[in-house]
Amino acid sequence: MNDLINSLFSHRTIRKYSAQPVSDGLLEELLNAGCRSSTTGNMQVYSIIVTRDEARKRALLPLHFNQKMVTEAQVLLTFCADFNRFVKWCILRDAIPGYDNFLSFMTAAIDAIIATQTVCIAAEARGLGICYLGTTTYMAHKIIEVLGLPRGVIPVTSITLGWPDENPEQPDRLPLEAIVHKENYSDYTDESIAEFYRFKEQREDSAQFIKENNKQTLAQVFTDIRYKKEDNLYFSHTFLQVLKDQGFMNQ
Amino acid sequence: MNDLINSLFSHRTIRKYSAQPVSDGLLEELLNAGCRSSTTGNMQVYSIIVTRDEARKRALLPLHFNQKMVTEAQVLLTFCADFNRFVKWCILRDAIPGYDNFLSFMTAAIDAIIATQTVCIAAEARGLGICYLGTTTYMAHKIIEVLGLPRGVIPVTSITLGWPDENPEQPDRLPLEAIVHKENYSDYTDESIAEFYRFKEQREDSAQFIKENNKQTLAQVFTDIRYKKEDNLYFSHTFLQVLKDQGFMNQ
Repeated sequence: MNDLINSLFSHRTIRKYSAQPVSDGLLEELLNAGCRSSTTGNMQVYSIIVTRDEARKRALLPLHFNQKMVTEAQVLLTFCADFNRFVKWCILRDAIPGYDNFLSFMTAAIDAIIATQTVCIAAEARGLGICYLGTTTYMAHKIIEVLGLPRGVIPVTSITLGWPDENPEQPDRLPLEAIVHKENYSDYTDESIAEFYRFKEQREDSAQFIKENNKQTLAQVFTDIRYKKEDNLYFSHTFLQVLKDQGFMNQ
Repeated sequence: MNDLINSLFSHRTIRKYSAQPVSDGLLEELLNAGCRSSTTGNMQVYSIIVTRDEARKRALLPLHFNQKMVTEAQVLLTFCADFNRFVKWCILRDAIPGYDNFLSFMTAAIDAIIATQTVCIAAEARGLGICYLGTTTYMAHKIIEVLGLPRGVIPVTSITLGWPDENPEQPDRLPLEAIVHKENYSDYTDESIAEFYRFKEQREDSAQFIKENNKQTLAQVFTDIRYKKEDNLYFSHTFLQVLKDQGFMNQ
């Protein structure tokens, strides 16, 4: 199983794809692998929307902030928390469902993400490349319209999928001891933060980001440019409204 | 890479574990694989708490509804949405963080689940078994106390990890066409629901569940026994309170 472990360790996000088709058979294998993953109480409270159609990709493109891999990748997959199917089954079988609440949304969202990551790992094992689109939660209200998602269904993440046309360097990661806590959470001091982020801060591309964006520190590139408070507040409001509109806030 | 794909397709949840130790080196490999996964903007806004200590396992046991694998498995891992570390870095580097909101919680929760599933797949590739604990979101407020999680940190899922001492049958799954929608969501009819759930409903163990629980349909076993409305409502309230208490509802 060294191949598998090596594949996990050689993960890199792919943003440039070749025009080579991804066959229906291969896609089906990846989706089937995803559906073998763990799921709460074997309820499988998620759905996967496959986008191959050019016009629909173009409709989704601005919702993913015009990241060009959305139209260039052969396949776009949108993973949704979905209690609609399960609730319809309950009603058909004289059972009274109680899944229109926040806890049920979390359960379904977790199911959806677990399936997503399995599909990604299966894809990479077959030589395909993937890229997660964090824009899915930002623009969920609009994605719901384009994909025709009914009440009970909320998109939580998307991936682009295709044959890689680039071989980028792996990004840096924090040292494992920055992420992992033994037995209880040992909170960070100024000294440990400085130590854990030193490698990231000393990278050449970090200096480049700071310069390009006319900032003093790398952290400011995140707070002032990439993941701004005003955007987070706005998207928090719209996503909470989606939870209400799709029927998950009746607790 | 057929080994990898086979491993994904042969996933089964393991609830019985042998007493054989899981070495620190092996655990470190799995955690390192998890930390190679995709993460939003390379922020790595998650933490992993490793529980090996017997007393702490016993403290967590009732919070996971006394599921005995919590104490019997060699290792319990709790995966947390974590903006605490990132925010501390921002403050240390003269950057003003804006991550105390619901969108940022979702971002961090998705990061945490992606890492979790990679650790699970790495574990299974090495012959270990895993079991997800959905109780993590139900009892997050209590887990926070036991693990000493500060503001900005919320547990979103846990897994037990160890060498399998059982080889259970794989559970059924809905047919792929029940989960996957091509281009747009095609909503379910009574007929398609009946068709998609037929295999599950006709299984012998489903008849057994119905009989044991004195119910008329399998769906009623879910709504009246396993995932009840009153529990979902209660845990929705407690988890939303956790979001407030840990500082993620300031939008």
